[in-house]
Amino acid sequence: MIRHWLRFMHQDSLRFGTLEGKRIQLWEGSMFGKAQASGVYLDPGDVELLTPTAPSKVLALWNNFGALGAKLNLAPPPEPLYLIKAPNSYLNPQGIIRAPAAGGKVVFEGELGIVIGKTASQVAERDAGNHIFGYTCANDVTAAEILNRDPTFAQWVRAKGFDTFCPFGPVVASGIDPHGLRVKTWLNGELRQDYPVSDMLFSPARLVSLISQDMSLYPGDLILCGTSVGVGSMKPGSMVEIEIEGIGKLGNRFE
Amino acid sequence: MIRHWLRFMHQDSLRFGTLEGKRIQLWEGSMFGKAQASGVYLDPGDVELLTPTAPSKVLALWNNFGALGAKLNLAPPPEPLYLIKAPNSYLNPQGIIRAPAAGGKVVFEGELGIVIGKTASQVAERDAGNHIFGYTCANDVTAAEILNRDPTFAQWVRAKGFDTFCPFGPVVASGIDPHGLRVKTWLNGELRQDYPVSDMLFSPARLVSLISQDMSLYPGDLILCGTSVGVGSMKPGSMVEIEIEGIGKLGNRFE
Repeated sequence: MIRHWLRFMHQDSLRFGTLEGKRIQLWEGSMFGKAQASGVYLDPGDVELLTPTAPSKVLALWNNFGALGAKLNLAPPPEPLYLIKAPNSYLNPQGIIRAPAAGGKVVFEGELGIVIGKTASQVAERDAGNHIFGYTCANDVTAAEILNRDPTFAQWVRAKGFDTFCPFGPVVASGIDPHGLRVKTWLNGELRQDYPVSDMLFSPARLVSLISQDMSLYPGDLILCGTSVGVGSMKPGSMVEIEIEGIGKLGNRFE
Repeated sequence: MIRHWLRFMHQDSLRFGTLEGKRIQLWEGSMFGKAQASGVYLDPGDVELLTPTAPSKVLALWNNFGALGAKLNLAPPPEPLYLIKAPNSYLNPQGIIRAPAAGGKVVFEGELGIVIGKTASQVAERDAGNHIFGYTCANDVTAAEILNRDPTFAQWVRAKGFDTFCPFGPVVASGIDPHGLRVKTWLNGELRQDYPVSDMLFSPARLVSLISQDMSLYPGDLILCGTSVGVGSMKPGSMVEIEIEGIGKLGNRFE
């Protein structure tokens, strides 16, 4: 069964629920454990949306799409290459992405995010699906000029870890197969990225399996699958929307 | 006033306290907020030590000591260069460092850790001390062969993020000035690292100030200051101890 999960503040309480038409149904329990629909419905205007999970870590893949690799003249990597997005970078679905005080070009990267539902450690690829709760939309925001400005040390963690540089959500879609979906990024209403998930070099199940050989993955953790062609920079006042049909649409302003 | 803070399980409760001689005094409240000594003393044998804080992130510096930079023929960097240690790598003071299933050389790196006590965002260097709660001992364990095996992407996060690769503690020492201290690493009782904190390129106050321009630092977060000369590999069965006089001694077996 397909569900779209949200996490939010309602009347000063941290709650979660499912999007049903234009309303939100409150759930009781734990999103990744025993969860039960309450039969109580809320108006979206009465809640403050939060990131749909509170990850202990967000991993982000590099060079995981065929088309972008080909454009950059990169060979498909023999193993997943990834970094961590700092927790201070997590941004609520309607939050504002802030330009770093340091200045410089800031780019959007529309991505599919895998949401872990069950602790994964040394998981086989055929079992990986049991550890995936669902999928979300993410913007892997990057201060592009910082990345390679030191010739001795690639600053992946820093360039991608500024406050507000990891908006994700608004929902986690469970019960879907993302293989046939497309990731679309709109900058000020103009379509800038539109690439198929099927062009991914390491599939979600393979990523969860391989990464879990190294690092335990916990419920709520995210793996951002990497981006493809069409990445571009944002100007203050820009609106960036990441849309994956069947999952949802994440929109954040950049200031 | 100098204090040595511990965090532990006692009778199925998560508690914190201070080391006083051979006993632990229980405290009430929050380590980084309002904390009050209880007057109740415990025997260390009756508690299970945990990492002294539960960080939202652990940052780790690269190339931050003069002697190691000189040995590796690296220029002092113009800005702090750092990565994130994955939260699954945090290891309790008496925990066992586990060799990755992937195999390969695993090295110890004895380091001074800065513990944040108060949220730091865009903090000036002269105010940074107000945001530092204290200092701890850490072992920045690294799977050395993974680091540079991909020519297109330095795998800092992965090589240093395996489960159990970030033991720290056992205590956080508050009320001390680390400038005159030395970091010593013992492998199976043999002294392998013995370097002065004063050889640090970016001082603790400067690190907190500069990093807080990019990333908000939260109470309990750690900044590992980087290592110096003497790093070496561990064989299964090895005991590694990181000792900083005035702070404490962290000992973990490697299997």
